[in-house]
Amino acid sequence: MSILVIGSVALDTVTTPFGAITEGLGGSGTHFAISASYYTDIHLVAVVGADFPAEHLRFLESRKIDLRGIEKVPGKTFRWTGKYDYDLNNAQTLKTELNVFEKFMPKVPDACRDIEYVFLANIDPDLQRQVIEQVKKPKLIACDTMNFWIQGKRDSLIRTISKVDILTINEGEARLLAKESNLIRAAKKIHAMGPKTIIIKQGEYGALLLHEEHIFSAPALPLEDIKDPTGAGDSFAGGFMGYLAKTGDLSLPSLKKAVIVGSAMASFNVEAFSCDRFRNLAMDEIRERYRLFKHLSHFDEIEL
Amino acid sequence: MSILVIGSVALDTVTTPFGAITEGLGGSGTHFAISASYYTDIHLVAVVGADFPAEHLRFLESRKIDLRGIEKVPGKTFRWTGKYDYDLNNAQTLKTELNVFEKFMPKVPDACRDIEYVFLANIDPDLQRQVIEQVKKPKLIACDTMNFWIQGKRDSLIRTISKVDILTINEGEARLLAKESNLIRAAKKIHAMGPKTIIIKQGEYGALLLHEEHIFSAPALPLEDIKDPTGAGDSFAGGFMGYLAKTGDLSLPSLKKAVIVGSAMASFNVEAFSCDRFRNLAMDEIRERYRLFKHLSHFDEIEL
Repeated sequence: MSILVIGSVALDTVTTPFGAITEGLGGSGTHFAISASYYTDIHLVAVVGADFPAEHLRFLESRKIDLRGIEKVPGKTFRWTGKYDYDLNNAQTLKTELNVFEKFMPKVPDACRDIEYVFLANIDPDLQRQVIEQVKKPKLIACDTMNFWIQGKRDSLIRTISKVDILTINEGEARLLAKESNLIRAAKKIHAMGPKTIIIKQGEYGALLLHEEHIFSAPALPLEDIKDPTGAGDSFAGGFMGYLAKTGDLSLPSLKKAVIVGSAMASFNVEAFSCDRFRNLAMDEIRERYRLFKHLSHFDEIEL
Repeated sequence: MSILVIGSVALDTVTTPFGAITEGLGGSGTHFAISASYYTDIHLVAVVGADFPAEHLRFLESRKIDLRGIEKVPGKTFRWTGKYDYDLNNAQTLKTELNVFEKFMPKVPDACRDIEYVFLANIDPDLQRQVIEQVKKPKLIACDTMNFWIQGKRDSLIRTISKVDILTINEGEARLLAKESNLIRAAKKIHAMGPKTIIIKQGEYGALLLHEEHIFSAPALPLEDIKDPTGAGDSFAGGFMGYLAKTGDLSLPSLKKAVIVGSAMASFNVEAFSCDRFRNLAMDEIRERYRLFKHLSHFDEIEL
């Protein structure tokens, strides 16, 4: 099945202890779409300015991503400038220039309103709800968010969350949203807001899947060389949703596999700046990494 | 096979957001010995003062722990006072009273010098080496330490580490010891100091086992009610070493199982203050928890 995604398409300027990139291809919608495109057809709804480099659109097209939902409007593309210190878990935002996103009203192309798998990448929760209102028969809606919206648009965000099946959220943001320091209790409070599945992203510690009364803990791949964590969460969500949409299987065992696929995609994303690792990533490398996650976390039965 | 352990036996005064205990039974040797006693015979080398409550010795004896190596000397027992905030990963030491530990010279009883499994719980690295010198034919020596010794007795600690097979260490302490922020690179530097197996304890995020070129990531059990994390690392080591000594199997699959047994014992330890959870813990509960860890972390093969 196809996936409809709304999110940002951005030009990111990022500095980490291991290098820097100026105005690289970024944005939550971009990272999600590229990652998910390994698994199924992706339809991206977003906005870019007149200054958006054509080469970036060509790269998205080369991944067979449907760009009919990308509006090109006068003005400047959304830009984010950030840096990371050695603690690569925490991005420090230096500058956010909304530009064309300030007046953006997402329009889902008519041809895409029947798509059953919907991902609302991290953007204004008002816009996320506008997309929900435009899809006709969603089978699975997942959404992501960030502290900026939890603090600045809490009520709107909670309305969006009440309409989704799956929420992906960072550990600290889950605590902030639920106003509860214990992660399991925080997840229970978020379950009560609507989503029956919550994925808590823990950066270099992996991710927790909380599905009804079940908990699954996915490790992160311990990596010696992390170049740039920007977009890791979106790449995770792309692999996760991509696998679910490809198989159409929403059972617990399938959700667990999807979390590992997502973790694998995130582990590739951080190996290079921007989306560059996906410019030459082959399916065989993904299969091999999935096996690595198994070696990393599986253990035998025991006699005690 | 039996285990010889040297470590502290202490009276701990601990405050957490969930309660407090005054002069409860504590100490690295105590927590290790009680946990490991579920798996094999434990021989504990330590020192207590004249004020050490007889009931604590009776509890250790009830766990069939050999106390011939515990010296009782005039003066006061070692005391530690600490507190935890909602971030239960970090203990804040309020007061350390070494008391009888100031002049302690560990003496391994003659009957215990042939023991092949040796655990050097967190104490002065000089004392840890004195124990190594007294054992005749160790098959496996593991040791634990803490930032206090990494910063205060670095050279002595590195001499101790050069003589052990396994080092268990907290994440932050591994970075401090190796002077390297990337955990995998830090582990490589520690491997070069001697131990071919390193266990990096990550608190609520679980533990990493780095054995030769292999990495295994064990989750922590997500717990809704954590009363007191004091001794979790020692309980982990007790389960880990206990399982290895019980089976005599030092292969990679066995090391992985031992890490999960250790994680299970740590998850029990934090459910109550002091060592209280072990006053009534049954083997069936441990088996059940091992299965829980499997549900928590295993996932199926995939077709991609």
